[in-house]
Amino acid sequence: MAESYRRIVLASRPHGWPSAENFRLEESSMPVLGEGEVRVRNQYLSLDPYMRGRMNDAKSYALPQMLNETMGGASVGEVVESRSSQFAVGDTVRGMLGWAEYGVSKSEGIAKVDTRHIPLSAYLGVVGMPGMTAWYGYNKIMEPKAGETVVVSAACGAVGSVVGQLARIAGVRVVGIAGGPEKCRYVTEELGFDACVDYKTAADAKSLAGLIAAAAPKGVDAHFENVGGDVLNAVVTLLNPFARVAICGLITDYNMTPGHVPKSAIMNPGMFLVARFKMQGFIISDHLNLWPEGLSALGGLVAAGKLKYQESVAEGLAAAPAAFIGMLKGHNFGKQLVRLY
Amino acid sequence: MAESYRRIVLASRPHGWPSAENFRLEESSMPVLGEGEVRVRNQYLSLDPYMRGRMNDAKSYALPQMLNETMGGASVGEVVESRSSQFAVGDTVRGMLGWAEYGVSKSEGIAKVDTRHIPLSAYLGVVGMPGMTAWYGYNKIMEPKAGETVVVSAACGAVGSVVGQLARIAGVRVVGIAGGPEKCRYVTEELGFDACVDYKTAADAKSLAGLIAAAAPKGVDAHFENVGGDVLNAVVTLLNPFARVAICGLITDYNMTPGHVPKSAIMNPGMFLVARFKMQGFIISDHLNLWPEGLSALGGLVAAGKLKYQESVAEGLAAAPAAFIGMLKGHNFGKQLVRLY
Repeated sequence: MAESYRRIVLASRPHGWPSAENFRLEESSMPVLGEGEVRVRNQYLSLDPYMRGRMNDAKSYALPQMLNETMGGASVGEVVESRSSQFAVGDTVRGMLGWAEYGVSKSEGIAKVDTRHIPLSAYLGVVGMPGMTAWYGYNKIMEPKAGETVVVSAACGAVGSVVGQLARIAGVRVVGIAGGPEKCRYVTEELGFDACVDYKTAADAKSLAGLIAAAAPKGVDAHFENVGGDVLNAVVTLLNPFARVAICGLITDYNMTPGHVPKSAIMNPGMFLVARFKMQGFIISDHLNLWPEGLSALGGLVAAGKLKYQESVAEGLAAAPAAFIGMLKGHNFGKQLVRLY
Repeated sequence: MAESYRRIVLASRPHGWPSAENFRLEESSMPVLGEGEVRVRNQYLSLDPYMRGRMNDAKSYALPQMLNETMGGASVGEVVESRSSQFAVGDTVRGMLGWAEYGVSKSEGIAKVDTRHIPLSAYLGVVGMPGMTAWYGYNKIMEPKAGETVVVSAACGAVGSVVGQLARIAGVRVVGIAGGPEKCRYVTEELGFDACVDYKTAADAKSLAGLIAAAAPKGVDAHFENVGGDVLNAVVTLLNPFARVAICGLITDYNMTPGHVPKSAIMNPGMFLVARFKMQGFIISDHLNLWPEGLSALGGLVAAGKLKYQESVAEGLAAAPAAFIGMLKGHNFGKQLVRLY
């Protein structure tokens, strides 16, 4: 066992967009395992938009990321040392071991994963937190019925791609919103969405609404929001009576300089009365009790080849900050990962 | 039977605030009753904020009010002529007979009301549409539990006063928002709210939030919105995790000149994620199936003296337009009615 390992810590808090200087790669000495603890060698790290919120020192649903501590986040890897009766060396596990080559966890903080039918990395995506996020928002907030029309933003991403495929499988018309012709082609041709709107071709919320309306001629019955900004404001104007809007992310605003009006400010509040719609924010970690049900459903679809997914993989720990910043700008294609070995 | 009757029609559509010129009082000849029809002499007319929306020629949940037709609205009165086997002369009824001394309805458009324990006018308020609106929003969207804190705007009004009393009866802490010390005193001393914030003493949404926070030290678990604007934006910043916001009305914006940003634009959309709250608009006419249940509950509370209400009564049909405009400005105190005889 090596005597030290590398990790990335939060060096400073960003104002607006994060940059490489907000992170620091450092070498730390390998801690001794306590009774009941397990050492995991991380093979893949998950990079997720919610991490940007945690980099601020602001009230939110999670505590802020601590300065000079390992950047938190989900990971998958292999048990390399165990003082727990529940885990043996060689087990493949998922946990929250952060941006580091190795991590230590109590046994309740990690879970074994079965890689016989599903690749290890997928436990950070389609059968991990992003997949569960999609499954929860789709089934518990959007609740679409066959024949309805739904819209999902960041349609090519780890969450949006699952939302749209769940809709397609259920016979619900689904319109994706994504940035650029390549992503839109993937969304319709590979994932089977009925239509995809390239938001980069729209000048403002109004013209974007026109493009979405053309793809959703019967109006919008449910919407899954990952992005916010013009996308959210465009969709709100198209909602049918009793529509449901699941707010999963508002990535447009995450890098806003404090004091500015958020681009996701909802400019047409009267639609709440015209369409009597529901808008509901959610965080999947509030619903851990539903993970067995959701993961079982998602795992079955993946193993059967009915649920496709795409990964963007950055190589090596040092690549994590740039990959993270790129993801916030939409440079990723599907789930953004970092591979460590 | 008189050969003619007086009514008020919509003469023109307002731009921004309505004025007396938008209405016209005119004399019309009394129509002959058809088979199955009933003639009602209106004793009280209901004036309600939603009528302002119908005066616009815009997409909404209801068809626009037609120009040169009787202003629509709820009324209560007495059957004076009947060609229906279901109604006899002398029956007291409620219906949608509009701003007129007399109206004609098919029998399915009116319902008998029992005035032995509840005054006739209350069927336009606490045991009518406003009461049902409060009951639905409270029980089906806010769903507060004992020990939680709720906020209701226009707390002195026909709807808000019922919302707050339902909360008080259920052991839920309730903070009202109203305009001026007289209304606030009524809300706390007569209706039994735990606190009332006079929004007129706040300069902006932020200072209003400070006043509400002081009255809701544990945060806000549910909110009933009649007003919008600074009130809504202030409350959103104070929501606890999993809060519920029922959007019943946004009267602040109803007289907005087209093209302006609504004052109720939701400026802090990130709170949807921080507090994972739900915001839902509703219109009571979508839920007619629940009226028997709701009216039975409300009627029982009124008859037992547990649910208080206040009325502002304008005298005579000609007073209706000014009373309506005054209500939009908050000049009324409780349910705004017009008494015709």
